[in-house]
Amino acid sequence: MSQMEPQRKLINSVDSCVDEALCGLVRSSRGLSLLQGHRVVLRSDLDNLRGKVALLSGGGSGHEPAHGGYVGAGMLSAAVAGGVFASPPPASILAAILSLHRAGASAVLLIVKNYTGDRLNFGLAAEQARNRGVAVDMVIVAEDCAFERPSKAGRRGLCGTVFVHKLAGAMAEDGSSLDQIVAKVTAVLKGIGTLGVSLSPCSVPGCLPSFDLPAGDMELGLGIHGEPGIKRSKVTTADEVVKTMIGHMTNPDSQSCLPLKSGDHTHTRYNDCDFKCGYLNCVCVCVCLAGDSVVVCVNNLGALSCLEMAVVSRAAIICLENRGVTVARVMCGSFMTSLEMAGMSLTVMIADDQTLTLFDAKTSAPAWPNLSGACVSGGRHVAAAPATGARPQDDDTHSEGPLSRVMRDVLERICSTLLEKQEELNSLDRAAGDGDCGNTHAQGARAIQEWLQGHVIPGCPGKLLSVLAGLVQEKMGGSSGALYSLFLTAAAGHVTEGRSNAAAWAAAMHAGTQAMRRYGGADPGDRTMLDALCPAVEELLKLTTAPPGGEMVILQAAVQKAASGAEATRDLTARAGRASYIAAERVTLPDPGAVAVATILRAVLDSLEVQK
Amino acid sequence: MSQMEPQRKLINSVDSCVDEALCGLVRSSRGLSLLQGHRVVLRSDLDNLRGKVALLSGGGSGHEPAHGGYVGAGMLSAAVAGGVFASPPPASILAAILSLHRAGASAVLLIVKNYTGDRLNFGLAAEQARNRGVAVDMVIVAEDCAFERPSKAGRRGLCGTVFVHKLAGAMAEDGSSLDQIVAKVTAVLKGIGTLGVSLSPCSVPGCLPSFDLPAGDMELGLGIHGEPGIKRSKVTTADEVVKTMIGHMTNPDSQSCLPLKSGDHTHTRYNDCDFKCGYLNCVCVCVCLAGDSVVVCVNNLGALSCLEMAVVSRAAIICLENRGVTVARVMCGSFMTSLEMAGMSLTVMIADDQTLTLFDAKTSAPAWPNLSGACVSGGRHVAAAPATGARPQDDDTHSEGPLSRVMRDVLERICSTLLEKQEELNSLDRAAGDGDCGNTHAQGARAIQEWLQGHVIPGCPGKLLSVLAGLVQEKMGGSSGALYSLFLTAAAGHVTEGRSNAAAWAAAMHAGTQAMRRYGGADPGDRTMLDALCPAVEELLKLTTAPPGGEMVILQAAVQKAASGAEATRDLTARAGRASYIAAERVTLPDPGAVAVATILRAVLDSLEVQK
Repeated sequence: MSQMEPQRKLINSVDSCVDEALCGLVRSSRGLSLLQGHRVVLRSDLDNLRGKVALLSGGGSGHEPAHGGYVGAGMLSAAVAGGVFASPPPASILAAILSLHRAGASAVLLIVKNYTGDRLNFGLAAEQARNRGVAVDMVIVAEDCAFERPSKAGRRGLCGTVFVHKLAGAMAEDGSSLDQIVAKVTAVLKGIGTLGVSLSPCSVPGCLPSFDLPAGDMELGLGIHGEPGIKRSKVTTADEVVKTMIGHMTNPDSQSCLPLKSGDHTHTRYNDCDFKCGYLNCVCVCVCLAGDSVVVCVNNLGALSCLEMAVVSRAAIICLENRGVTVARVMCGSFMTSLEMAGMSLTVMIADDQTLTLFDAKTSAPAWPNLSGACVSGGRHVAAAPATGARPQDDDTHSEGPLSRVMRDVLERICSTLLEKQEELNSLDRAAGDGDCGNTHAQGARAIQEWLQGHVIPGCPGKLLSVLAGLVQEKMGGSSGALYSLFLTAAAGHVTEGRSNAAAWAAAMHAGTQAMRRYGGADPGDRTMLDALCPAVEELLKLTTAPPGGEMVILQAAVQKAASGAEATRDLTARAGRASYIAAERVTLPDPGAVAVATILRAVLDSLEVQK
Repeated sequence: MSQMEPQRKLINSVDSCVDEALCGLVRSSRGLSLLQGHRVVLRSDLDNLRGKVALLSGGGSGHEPAHGGYVGAGMLSAAVAGGVFASPPPASILAAILSLHRAGASAVLLIVKNYTGDRLNFGLAAEQARNRGVAVDMVIVAEDCAFERPSKAGRRGLCGTVFVHKLAGAMAEDGSSLDQIVAKVTAVLKGIGTLGVSLSPCSVPGCLPSFDLPAGDMELGLGIHGEPGIKRSKVTTADEVVKTMIGHMTNPDSQSCLPLKSGDHTHTRYNDCDFKCGYLNCVCVCVCLAGDSVVVCVNNLGALSCLEMAVVSRAAIICLENRGVTVARVMCGSFMTSLEMAGMSLTVMIADDQTLTLFDAKTSAPAWPNLSGACVSGGRHVAAAPATGARPQDDDTHSEGPLSRVMRDVLERICSTLLEKQEELNSLDRAAGDGDCGNTHAQGARAIQEWLQGHVIPGCPGKLLSVLAGLVQEKMGGSSGALYSLFLTAAAGHVTEGRSNAAAWAAAMHAGTQAMRRYGGADPGDRTMLDALCPAVEELLKLTTAPPGGEMVILQAAVQKAASGAEATRDLTARAGRASYIAAERVTLPDPGAVAVATILRAVLDSLEVQK
């Protein structure tokens, strides 16, 4: 794309996108409706406003879900939208006010972000409504902490507006008077501060990006329309960015600062905590004393990934707790966006118990998150892991049994055979895969050989299979390691010290094969190890009804079936595993996985025949 | 940034970002905790699992809020995360299963997206848990509709997994048995389908973008790790993209299709509906008959703006309703992301009443949205606008009064004077603004002149001021239009036919000025029109106590104050309005807005003196 062409967006047209987005919001929720002929989202249960204070907010579009998404019981009664980043026209604001008045609201409170256009247009509509006898008041939200010496226009209104919607909404729902709501909101606003940072600009539909920001740079303190911020610098770590932001927001030398009271901070240490708070293994409980209690909003400006947002949330919580500030609630998500700007803003609100009660009150507004009403700071957030016991391969409490010698010989034969065949298997694999099938099997074989040197063979065959499952899972790697491990794990339960006759082994082989099929998703005929294993296991199942002494004949037949099954994979098209990505005509050799299985079964037979 | 450098992200390090994101999620909600030493998010109220079926899901990271955000009462009991786009290790899956078992869960159901790595690793852990006596079952979610002939690996598991979390979670919370849950989920899965589209790739932290997609192109049917899709094309309109997607998803020739039953579709027309369903003025109610009822999830893959997401939601609802399908619920947001991919996926679930009841059940999972439990289709979503009456300037029911002649003369004098001064005001404005102050005032003057030609002057001065407010708001434009309109609107209520003596006019001027100050945010001394207006109004307030016959003297003094106030702005630094962006030393002329106000007041005086 040329730098001079507007970015492609998933819309129908530049002219219709605002109306269609409002329609999409309203059509998605039966709790909302549109005011005909206006870009106004209304509660559809306007009857519930009778005798209560109604709340109206709004502003330019491009900040979705603000403000339409905050319309609902317990938040806004209505929201007016302008064009993208443009103030709504006074006529629509007036129509919204009159609709709320007509519904029986006792008064209408306008919640307005501090931008000149919004102040004038909402102000004009307010005066017009007053001339028609409607009781109207207005609160201006101006909580931006960017500028140390703000101009006469004052601090900008940013994401903190959403907190005002919530608190005023809870009061209005509860039947508070206009004066009570204005007084509470005015008091709370003194303790709300917001600062944003962005790694990219955004672009109004049909327009070029709002500003130019070199890749790898970030801009601190910018407004939600891409207005300039206070500082540009290289993108540093999330922890550093958050620390800088909260430091700037609370700098007492700034006229725009949030008057946040710090306090003491103690860690209560549990077992092996290394005091790296917020890391996966940190189990310490952080207790904040004497500092303020706050609600934090980590707001995605548009295109930051949810992974990054969560990293930022962690940084914000830790930074505040380290200052002795109790983090009472955290909300993280897209609340007041700037189209697709890759950035985020932090809003901090000092909150006493009364404020928290209002914050926690129920709302039906579709954009309000599903928050828990419990204090974030002060809890343990790490649970002790269950005692899974030692890895089977480290378990040295096994005792030998009558089968131990036989099983050791079988395993030694399997390992030496696989090591002999390493290059042959690699070569088969080069035709259809990445050529490491022999290496993978050799890794497993060497791991088993090493283990055999240092351990006794448990008399219980199931225990041995569990050991092998652990070794193969850990040392062999890849899908084939997982598949062998699955086979061995599923088989292990079927052969125990007291139940290890031929029929039990047949059942174990069958269970292992079924597990492979179930979780691996392949079937015989798909050109995988199953093409050797399944015919062999089918033969082995005859062991359950075999006459005494007939076992070796069945085993021989099974090994033969495995070998011919492996050979027959030459003619099969790969439908599972890596080889399925290769064109069928290119593969004329047997499947290396099937050959490996046949090889292992042959080694078992050879070992048993020698021992016999 | 060079194409060969990984994109900068707001994280601390590539190695720590997954652990820190999990920590951020868990620290933000007291309802969640981490399993020590594992990337496992657990409900912190594990006690509530006693005797119930526990639900465990998980998979690679980079899909946040999946799956940790869906842990909570009524959804998952725990979620295991792997590295970014990597399957979690069996040891952590096992630890999670054993934690749930230890907490007293009657059984553990694993909900696994159909990717080979996840199937094998969850399968292995399931078999290991079974060997320890835990009742474990697994459902595989494979609802991707991309490929008409899916490979042996089967359809991929995508955002539909979130529906499974919700339905199974509601059943588990209610005490359903493992078999009941598996049976229900298995049945529901046959009626879930998902298809994605993307306008950009994403990049794993520390890596280059996952694929290359030219700007302006989109890829249909891609997986959530950036695996290839089925088709590339130019980005078309949102409506067209959604129609193509739903058409592909429900194509009966595809082995991956969603068996969606269409039906009839009727519009009930209200007043002036033009049948353009979903537009701002469409008030028709769409009734769907005989088709399936569905739940729709419009899922942001990462970086699509919320504006675009809402446009897509509208398109999806209308497309389905036009096929006679009843849209029962819509959720729109970030549910199963691919880092910062600019794209979205649509998931459609065929849902009967029992399914909807489970879908609507309460959950404490932090990533579940605040949905209303009412059917989306079939409701009216447009409310009639209030009768705001005709615009004041169109109201022809006024009757003349004794003051009409005086007021007409005053207005004519104001207009002709402003037109004479047009160039002078422009020239003053060029020094500090955009040079159009004279033009703006001339536009207003011409609009008033035109209106005067065709209308009688209402005898009630307040009515005239309302007319002027409407004309100026509409025709003058800009901030000064809004400010004059504010002044006139606020003043209008203070002068009526029965109360239009000099004191009333003084009160009106005062109220107008106060409204300007309040909503405009400027004060005297800020180099604005207030520097002329405020001293004049202060003088005019003496009218309230003036002896009869003394009015003209006070008016003369007020006009003099306005003129000297305007002249004194030469020495003021602009602190509000556009001129505040210009360096102080560059401005040595008086403020054009203040000069215009002084000019208007002088014209009023001149006219009244002539008439007298």
